[in-house]
Amino acid sequence: MIIAKFGGSSLAGAHQFNKVKSLVQNNPNRTHIVVSAMGKDEANPVKLTDELIALYDNRANDELAAEHFERIKVRLLTLKKDLALTVNLDYQLEDFYRNLNHLSYAECVSRGEYFTAQLMAEYLGYQFVDAIDFLVLNQNQVDLKSSQEKFAALNLQDTPCVFPGFYGLDNQGNMQLMPRSGSDTSGSVIANLLDADLYENWTDVAGIKAADPRLIDNPKRIEQLTYDELQELAYMGLSVFQEDAIKPIKDKNIPTRILDTNHPDALGTTICNEFSNQLITGLVGQQNYTIIHIKKFSLSRDYSNFVEIFKLMSDLSLAVSYTFSGKDHIDLIVESSQLNKNKALLFDKLQTLFPTDCQITLKEDISLIAAVSDKFSAKPYLVSDLIEQLNQNEIDVQFVNQSSTDVKVLFGVKNDDYIKALQLLYNYVEKKEKINLI
Amino acid sequence: MIIAKFGGSSLAGAHQFNKVKSLVQNNPNRTHIVVSAMGKDEANPVKLTDELIALYDNRANDELAAEHFERIKVRLLTLKKDLALTVNLDYQLEDFYRNLNHLSYAECVSRGEYFTAQLMAEYLGYQFVDAIDFLVLNQNQVDLKSSQEKFAALNLQDTPCVFPGFYGLDNQGNMQLMPRSGSDTSGSVIANLLDADLYENWTDVAGIKAADPRLIDNPKRIEQLTYDELQELAYMGLSVFQEDAIKPIKDKNIPTRILDTNHPDALGTTICNEFSNQLITGLVGQQNYTIIHIKKFSLSRDYSNFVEIFKLMSDLSLAVSYTFSGKDHIDLIVESSQLNKNKALLFDKLQTLFPTDCQITLKEDISLIAAVSDKFSAKPYLVSDLIEQLNQNEIDVQFVNQSSTDVKVLFGVKNDDYIKALQLLYNYVEKKEKINLI
Repeated sequence: MIIAKFGGSSLAGAHQFNKVKSLVQNNPNRTHIVVSAMGKDEANPVKLTDELIALYDNRANDELAAEHFERIKVRLLTLKKDLALTVNLDYQLEDFYRNLNHLSYAECVSRGEYFTAQLMAEYLGYQFVDAIDFLVLNQNQVDLKSSQEKFAALNLQDTPCVFPGFYGLDNQGNMQLMPRSGSDTSGSVIANLLDADLYENWTDVAGIKAADPRLIDNPKRIEQLTYDELQELAYMGLSVFQEDAIKPIKDKNIPTRILDTNHPDALGTTICNEFSNQLITGLVGQQNYTIIHIKKFSLSRDYSNFVEIFKLMSDLSLAVSYTFSGKDHIDLIVESSQLNKNKALLFDKLQTLFPTDCQITLKEDISLIAAVSDKFSAKPYLVSDLIEQLNQNEIDVQFVNQSSTDVKVLFGVKNDDYIKALQLLYNYVEKKEKINLI
Repeated sequence: MIIAKFGGSSLAGAHQFNKVKSLVQNNPNRTHIVVSAMGKDEANPVKLTDELIALYDNRANDELAAEHFERIKVRLLTLKKDLALTVNLDYQLEDFYRNLNHLSYAECVSRGEYFTAQLMAEYLGYQFVDAIDFLVLNQNQVDLKSSQEKFAALNLQDTPCVFPGFYGLDNQGNMQLMPRSGSDTSGSVIANLLDADLYENWTDVAGIKAADPRLIDNPKRIEQLTYDELQELAYMGLSVFQEDAIKPIKDKNIPTRILDTNHPDALGTTICNEFSNQLITGLVGQQNYTIIHIKKFSLSRDYSNFVEIFKLMSDLSLAVSYTFSGKDHIDLIVESSQLNKNKALLFDKLQTLFPTDCQITLKEDISLIAAVSDKFSAKPYLVSDLIEQLNQNEIDVQFVNQSSTDVKVLFGVKNDDYIKALQLLYNYVEKKEKINLI
């Protein structure tokens, strides 16, 4: 059984629905389909979801609200007409608009997936199954155990279905949205609940690239990678696959493919638990971090110091991306944009916490680069080779962190060196792989 | 003005006192002397301090107590006689023994330094100044500010003095000991209080070695190093100079020399704020650590997780030597001997803290190796070179951590690889320095 999830661009109009239908009909195992809301195409520059957000934001303004609703209605009914479908959307849409002022944000914005899924269900001749009937969310995170119980009761194992992605119900019965790109997670959860043989994630790109194409010329496609590697890539900002979507497929070891609806024969990227052929799977990075360096004699001797530091970060809602600590210091690596909102306050509070003999220094404009690979423990020379590349080319490496339990090596460099460093590392890896030193 | 501190072996008997006197007389700037308690020599296999500890422990046993006291008395009075001194030790000793049952541990054990200092003061013709008159301790740590105030009131700037090391008074007026080897700290504090030009630390070794002579054949002497480098070496177990002694000299940038009373012309080691000539200053390590690896999906997303983890470590009195954390894991590096006392409890508590989806794994039998150098930022290739040495020789590197704000690179290796790894690194550095690649 294959769970196939289609993203918004694969659903942008009749032409795209057509492609989806061909794909589904080409493989009888594609029995459970998950859809996002209609995306944008040339004729429609705004995604259905963004239109719904604008509608909600302007619900108190009759004129603006009417404009947004009109575009939503036209878009959906045009598709219905183009595909010669009969589902009673007209009534549902009017009812939705009439009730708008009683709807929560989630109830409004989720209608993109809701209506798109109904259209797809009729178009494929599959059963429409609403996500609120089984998908349980707890603070925007999927509660797999509760979802499993509800899903089993629906008994959908042998029924071809279409599910709307992106939303579910919390334990109090309120509709909740997942983070943006949540349909990846809906698909992944359904693949988990059904113990699928394969989870296909159909997008508008033929798989995941080994580096950011805006920074690296024509980076190679990653043919295959592990869940852990994907997780590191997703954490560092890879947008092709939502981070939260990884756990459900990883837990059940469900092979997952990232594919392109517009080029269905392109190989895409496969995520599974097997080792791949490449030396380095991906090189990803993020700019604009700050290293908060707290140095105090014997900082780690008093057990409570770290507790107090992390409490403070928590009080200021400062997410600490990475930390490294030793006897007399701790480095907290945070996003500069987050820090800047609270910089003065943080300094104040740290000063109160450590009134004497404590140096607090900030290293700003730092970029993080992660080289992700499942080969670091088998080929330990990789780490020194990568550092050497940076050193030889006068990249000022701010820190290096690597652990043998980890599928990544993390480098800190200056923002100014970021692109150069990424390119150096990419070119090095490419050359190394070409001369077959793998 | 020079503050000269003499360790126990430099004070073990009349012969050693003689050497100290020559040294002091050879340089008229050696006006402020700090002494440990008499150490051991061939005739006396037990240090005076250990004899005092045994006396205190056996104070309820008249027979044993009398034996220990007798040895203490004989030792001190023999020295007094050998040096033809007149200080009234006989009465003080009898008084001390009579009051033994009313004395605190600190009041008993500190008498080694107290009596030794009185003998030295008369022998040199210097004034004896008791540490309780100025040295303020707060939970066994020196309170520099309060000490400064009390010391200034004594007005000792131009008076040649002898001070006993190792103890002081807390704010409640109770005597307190410093950690063992605390006389290093007493000397360092007095150097700070007097704004000394130089702090001489006279021991029985001619300076600090670049590696442990038990593991490395004839390691070179470190000619010069910075306070920060010394601190890293001390933290990793270097015993020549007490870790707590570094802050007072570093704060006032007081050059410090580690010298050998028995070979006063040997150059020893100089600690100051200037860059040295060597590539790597020292290679030190410690065995028997455990890496507690806590892996949980999005561990760092919930701010309170780290707070709870460190609280738990604190509740279990588990000192965390190093930590590294990323989005979904934290590595806590602790001494195995500490962990083993509480391993089951720690697992229980972590399980309670993270009841689902959390993997806790222990990597035991880990050794830490620190390469200490002030050259890492100027010569970044050093880091990759060192890692390469380990990799090429099939040392399984468990983790690498380096930060450009740091004067060390920290490696984790298996206990079984510890000595080999240290030797490899030492030989590499030695060769590199010989061929003048510095």
